[in-house]
Amino acid sequence: MDLLAVPAEKKKGWYLSLMAPNTKGPMFSWLDPSRLYCNSQAFADCVEDLLSPFQKDSIDLVAGIDAMGFILGASVATSLGKGFLTIRKGGHLCVPSQHLNYTDYTGKENTLEVRQDVLKPGVRVLLVDQWIETGGTMKAAVQLIEGQGATVAGIATVAIENTEGGKWIKDNYRFSHCIPEELQSHIDGKDLNSLIQKLQKLSN
Amino acid sequence: MDLLAVPAEKKKGWYLSLMAPNTKGPMFSWLDPSRLYCNSQAFADCVEDLLSPFQKDSIDLVAGIDAMGFILGASVATSLGKGFLTIRKGGHLCVPSQHLNYTDYTGKENTLEVRQDVLKPGVRVLLVDQWIETGGTMKAAVQLIEGQGATVAGIATVAIENTEGGKWIKDNYRFSHCIPEELQSHIDGKDLNSLIQKLQKLSN
Repeated sequence: MDLLAVPAEKKKGWYLSLMAPNTKGPMFSWLDPSRLYCNSQAFADCVEDLLSPFQKDSIDLVAGIDAMGFILGASVATSLGKGFLTIRKGGHLCVPSQHLNYTDYTGKENTLEVRQDVLKPGVRVLLVDQWIETGGTMKAAVQLIEGQGATVAGIATVAIENTEGGKWIKDNYRFSHCIPEELQSHIDGKDLNSLIQKLQKLSN
Repeated sequence: MDLLAVPAEKKKGWYLSLMAPNTKGPMFSWLDPSRLYCNSQAFADCVEDLLSPFQKDSIDLVAGIDAMGFILGASVATSLGKGFLTIRKGGHLCVPSQHLNYTDYTGKENTLEVRQDVLKPGVRVLLVDQWIETGGTMKAAVQLIEGQGATVAGIATVAIENTEGGKWIKDNYRFSHCIPEELQSHIDGKDLNSLIQKLQKLSN
């Protein structure tokens, strides 16, 4: 289908069929969710699904993780009418900031940093990233937010893989994701061929 | 003031007073506009100002430049009800993409890349980044979009410095930015002290 066209009938999670599979080999992530943002209805439906569990919750601020979490995070913030806080990769912020080292999903040592003049006790933050694989990046972001005394009101992301870190998030925080129950095992197994078959059924 | 509070009276460009000056020295950018996104009203007013010149224009898609352009870009896309295309730093996309080398505002050689399955002739793109300094990054993004036959319908950014590249953008494209006329020379001169004095008057 035309990537920018809106389908007449939309099953739950239909927009996931717009994600693109990796064609460049093992040095790249196995799937590109960002393709779905190009379609206006897909982007809006994805954000609506992410916000759905939090409709009655008190949220003061949305935070997104550098770089892909900025997209969903800013869209979520705009939909909610809230401000947006950047959780940046280390070495970028020109202002006083706190940083934390962590291991990302590729096994690489990395740093996240957050400004020091926004968060404080009582501020409830909805934390957004594109995808949670090992959960290492998200855990670091949680620790930065809580380390400044603010509260993680929830975690929203396209998918949470059932890794140790993914389970830790599900066990300890309110969360939302976009993956229908019957697709979760294909996500966990990074089972691209069967995932694509299932996704195509969502879009037909 | 409390960064998350909304002022009673709002002068044109009031939210620019929330930008934070560099405190870390010459290896960092001279100003941090991202602080203003934390305030819900500032973020919304900034996006509204960016969209204002394009209200009657036909726009099919919003594109934002990695990483800070993702924030304003995704918010602009959500406000317009359009999809969002990522213009990524090189080496990240796991799908077929076109790339272009360029020199960024720090003088560093860099690469931008964009997926190949979205843009085509007739697609009108509103291109968003946080700030245009030398214009090198934005020019590369323009060339990537036009290289795939699509049209740059406009360029939106918090500020356009009057550099050679900044002037090239103003001369050749429809554009929007948030800087009131009387502040432009302070932006061009990176004259932080007098800029801050002027900005404080906007917020009082």
